[in-house]
Amino acid sequence: MRTVDLITKKRDGGELTKEEINILIRGYTDGSVPDYQMSAMAMAIFFKGMTPTERADLTMAMVHSGETIDLSGIDGIKVDKHSTGGVGDTTTLVLAPLVASIGVPVAKMSGRGLGHTGGTIDKLESVPGFHVEIDNEQFLELVNRNGLAVIGQSDNLTPADKKLYGLRDVTGTVNSIPLIASSIMSKKIASGADAIVLDVKTGDGAFMKELSEAEELAACMVDIGNRVGRRTIAVLSDMSQPLGNAIGNALEVREAIDTLRGVGPEDLTELCLTLGSHMAVLAGVASDQQAARKMLEQSIANGHALEKFKLFLSAQGGDASVVDEPERLPSAKYRFEVPAKAAGYVSSIAAENMGLAAMLLGAGRATKESSIDLAVGIFLHKKVGDSVKDGESLATIHANGESVSDVITQIYKSIQIQENPVNPPPLLVGEVK
Amino acid sequence: MRTVDLITKKRDGGELTKEEINILIRGYTDGSVPDYQMSAMAMAIFFKGMTPTERADLTMAMVHSGETIDLSGIDGIKVDKHSTGGVGDTTTLVLAPLVASIGVPVAKMSGRGLGHTGGTIDKLESVPGFHVEIDNEQFLELVNRNGLAVIGQSDNLTPADKKLYGLRDVTGTVNSIPLIASSIMSKKIASGADAIVLDVKTGDGAFMKELSEAEELAACMVDIGNRVGRRTIAVLSDMSQPLGNAIGNALEVREAIDTLRGVGPEDLTELCLTLGSHMAVLAGVASDQQAARKMLEQSIANGHALEKFKLFLSAQGGDASVVDEPERLPSAKYRFEVPAKAAGYVSSIAAENMGLAAMLLGAGRATKESSIDLAVGIFLHKKVGDSVKDGESLATIHANGESVSDVITQIYKSIQIQENPVNPPPLLVGEVK
Repeated sequence: MRTVDLITKKRDGGELTKEEINILIRGYTDGSVPDYQMSAMAMAIFFKGMTPTERADLTMAMVHSGETIDLSGIDGIKVDKHSTGGVGDTTTLVLAPLVASIGVPVAKMSGRGLGHTGGTIDKLESVPGFHVEIDNEQFLELVNRNGLAVIGQSDNLTPADKKLYGLRDVTGTVNSIPLIASSIMSKKIASGADAIVLDVKTGDGAFMKELSEAEELAACMVDIGNRVGRRTIAVLSDMSQPLGNAIGNALEVREAIDTLRGVGPEDLTELCLTLGSHMAVLAGVASDQQAARKMLEQSIANGHALEKFKLFLSAQGGDASVVDEPERLPSAKYRFEVPAKAAGYVSSIAAENMGLAAMLLGAGRATKESSIDLAVGIFLHKKVGDSVKDGESLATIHANGESVSDVITQIYKSIQIQENPVNPPPLLVGEVK
Repeated sequence: MRTVDLITKKRDGGELTKEEINILIRGYTDGSVPDYQMSAMAMAIFFKGMTPTERADLTMAMVHSGETIDLSGIDGIKVDKHSTGGVGDTTTLVLAPLVASIGVPVAKMSGRGLGHTGGTIDKLESVPGFHVEIDNEQFLELVNRNGLAVIGQSDNLTPADKKLYGLRDVTGTVNSIPLIASSIMSKKIASGADAIVLDVKTGDGAFMKELSEAEELAACMVDIGNRVGRRTIAVLSDMSQPLGNAIGNALEVREAIDTLRGVGPEDLTELCLTLGSHMAVLAGVASDQQAARKMLEQSIANGHALEKFKLFLSAQGGDASVVDEPERLPSAKYRFEVPAKAAGYVSSIAAENMGLAAMLLGAGRATKESSIDLAVGIFLHKKVGDSVKDGESLATIHANGESVSDVITQIYKSIQIQENPVNPPPLLVGEVK
């Protein structure tokens, strides 16, 4: 079977068989299928899409292109959560200890990642002493003992996906739903998840700006998961404005602590309760969503969730006293307020631009090699729908340098204020099971 | 400007500017645009097509990617002919001396090529002593003196097209009309043509099996030519059955001699007169098609065309006595007849299968490295519409080996005979100016 025949078949709208997909991905992984054939295939897939069977076969072919993590040593159903990424998304930091506190085993692989702020590991590293340099055995042991551990992403997971992702990035084939879906799902499955809860963002700050696209992606991932025996549920959530109030690594840890304590931002709390109750149901620790939600709310109220977070931090070398004394977290040298230029109602906060403002401060990585400043960031005092007095602070900039005029400009550009009252956008915009 | 942005622009249906196309092709030629980006671009072009301006710009960018032949040292308007290829196509061998004999300068670059039989140079090399190893100066001098010369294709013409063609072949992007058209036109223009007559084949033995596709390709090439200042005309001709009666190198030379003598097959003669009169008009040696046709017919009748062929052969070292004594051409050891199994009328002769039968004998090249046997081939005694008696020979196989059973099987598979009379298919099916 020649690769060119597979490309032509896809180009003409044909369906690739499981065997053809396996041969293609095996060849691409070992280098016998060159990049120039894979990029033509990716472009053909961009135009012709993939059938549900093809998407599932592609996902599993990528899973088997490298190492897979065996979590069978951990008792219970391992439910993983994945977010398609946004601005100020502190969900993982809250969710992991929260669901662990009601008995959902959390064996989390996480990365550093590119973007407006760091990845989950970067954020956690703002807790002095915390580290993810544990081996697989310790990792499983910690999850069994504490119900929760985080480990760095193995370099050997889904090498075909890594290679293809890099190729798509330079050949105009990133924006293909079956390719995005199989990329995400292959990583989750290779990481050992038995079941998966997806948080698919939509709106200005999300990769999928349009709800219809986000819905399509969600449906595609849920279908893949269910076809390959991993129960999968997707929640569609709004990312037209940043989630929560904090954008920046240590600021987000602080916000996570507040949320676990029950005094966090409303939207972040709601999203964590929603995602968390799906996780609890899939893990079999709650019979339905309502029951799960109650358990989670109780765990926040009685302090179990916060205790779990402390236990987790100290088990991986972190100074758990930051939870009660958050001023011990890295803190920026300077603070600048951004006062409203007129009274009115916040009508929009462009999430992507706010993310870029945080990056200007040094909170995120532009390239893999960039270093990030864990202390800096932006704290929003207002969200869409809030009323604002003239001169009232819209946001506080946490900076380690004195010249922040471009950051201020960027924030003013991002926050729109109007005279008439505004309804805040709904946070939860859909669900796919 | 990043290449990925150009790919995305094309992918989303945008029009590339002349500058963007020049940067792309320059980068691809010098290697700074890698194959994997070019193949993604080719696939995007496959799906999104190119505007007339883009096609013309791409053609000229490929022309300027390498050497261009300067034919200004030859008096008159240099008209080149190109055929999109078929089975038993002896047109060039007839046309070159025929139009030269009425004053159209023919400065022909030709190749060896892959396919059912050899390229024009292979065929001519069946004339003992004939060669194309002449330098550019001799080439121009011969055209000026004799009105006609053939030289081998320079390796330095349109390197971008060569590279892209090789890439398209393995990435499922051959079948794109703008890419086919710009490939053909760039080679003709780089070879120095002032005007171009295209013979676009359609039907079973042609690359474009459907008339509508052939028409689209013809229109596309004519438009490119006219946009870049090369007057171009396309004739659409039938290739549902082989052209003429001979398939095989020396056999086709013999058929060309017959045709120049006025006793060749009707279809080959008609096509040569049609293409030749277009060439004569474009070259300005005849005022219109009718006048041109008369001049060509006269030249055949009074022997001038045949004399021109002799002059051409001897000028390039060939033994011109083969023209009067064609038995001096390479001749195969064995002949086998293929008798009709029943009486009736020939309803079809599958051109492509007949070509494959000739390849089985060794008349064509499967790969660039294959050697070919100039003597072998197939001579058809019947064409579509002819009546056949039971046992009458349909074709003679000229072979250099005794085992031709698979060739015979292939011929029987290719020729269909039915009881009721059949109308022969029209040879000339369209024209694009």
